[in-house]
Amino acid sequence: MTDNTRARNILGLTGWVLLCFAAAASGAMFKPGAWYAALNKPAWNPPAWVFGPVWTTLYLMMAVAAWLVWRRGGFAAQRRALGWFLAQLALNAAWTPLFFGLHRPGLAFAEILLLAAAIAATIRAFWPVHRVAAGLLAPYLAWVGFAAVLNGTLWRLNP
Amino acid sequence: MTDNTRARNILGLTGWVLLCFAAAASGAMFKPGAWYAALNKPAWNPPAWVFGPVWTTLYLMMAVAAWLVWRRGGFAAQRRALGWFLAQLALNAAWTPLFFGLHRPGLAFAEILLLAAAIAATIRAFWPVHRVAAGLLAPYLAWVGFAAVLNGTLWRLNP
Repeated sequence: MTDNTRARNILGLTGWVLLCFAAAASGAMFKPGAWYAALNKPAWNPPAWVFGPVWTTLYLMMAVAAWLVWRRGGFAAQRRALGWFLAQLALNAAWTPLFFGLHRPGLAFAEILLLAAAIAATIRAFWPVHRVAAGLLAPYLAWVGFAAVLNGTLWRLNP
Repeated sequence: MTDNTRARNILGLTGWVLLCFAAAASGAMFKPGAWYAALNKPAWNPPAWVFGPVWTTLYLMMAVAAWLVWRRGGFAAQRRALGWFLAQLALNAAWTPLFFGLHRPGLAFAEILLLAAAIAATIRAFWPVHRVAAGLLAPYLAWVGFAAVLNGTLWRLNP
């Protein structure tokens, strides 16, 4: 690996981490607050402290996955795969403003179903390019599936 | 204005500009390329060089608008207005990956209609908080309306 390639790789990884954390930032701005505390919750609702570490880990895995695919020829070669990735990232960024910003669990539920579909499409697009990258997104899809069930339950329990 | 307030204001404006340009970055990664060049276009399709300066201006106006509303009590006081703003910003970030990443003008058209609706909702939420902030988003809504018509036309002309 030449010094130039190494520099480009490190810069690329930094860029993907920054982009994923920008999406995270759009969500981190809303605090659950009194509204969330007052919601009727299912018994299996995880404690609030779980979400921060889980999401931080998932955003990092996401950034690494996108970077691994991007290294195989950049946007020119991986247009479709990275297109799905960025589309799912935007849908990811939209969820917290809908749920915790607007207090609209129904709208957020419709949106998280689209997000889960977009993550599945991203994994399918990553798979032929880089198996490890596709695998890195599996825990993310599993967590969003769980989050969707939780969101749907909170919507049903708080009409 | 104390030095502390001034520092907080400048930091806040910087944050909003960075967040809006992160959304722009998610779009700037895809080049129109040969696919776009080969599309059948209407006579009134603007030349390609128009889009860069227009979007840069609109993202800056967007950042200032959000900042003006945010200054009125932060996320705690402006939860709903800033919730709509961040939701429309995420929808904005999703459009380029769908159109230029996936080459799916139909999907992108459905998405840009949602975006226009979310911008209208943001303006309505900004209006009672800060008239100038609401006004700063009017050219953006007009441009996205035009972009939606263009997107729909490109979809129809290239089935």
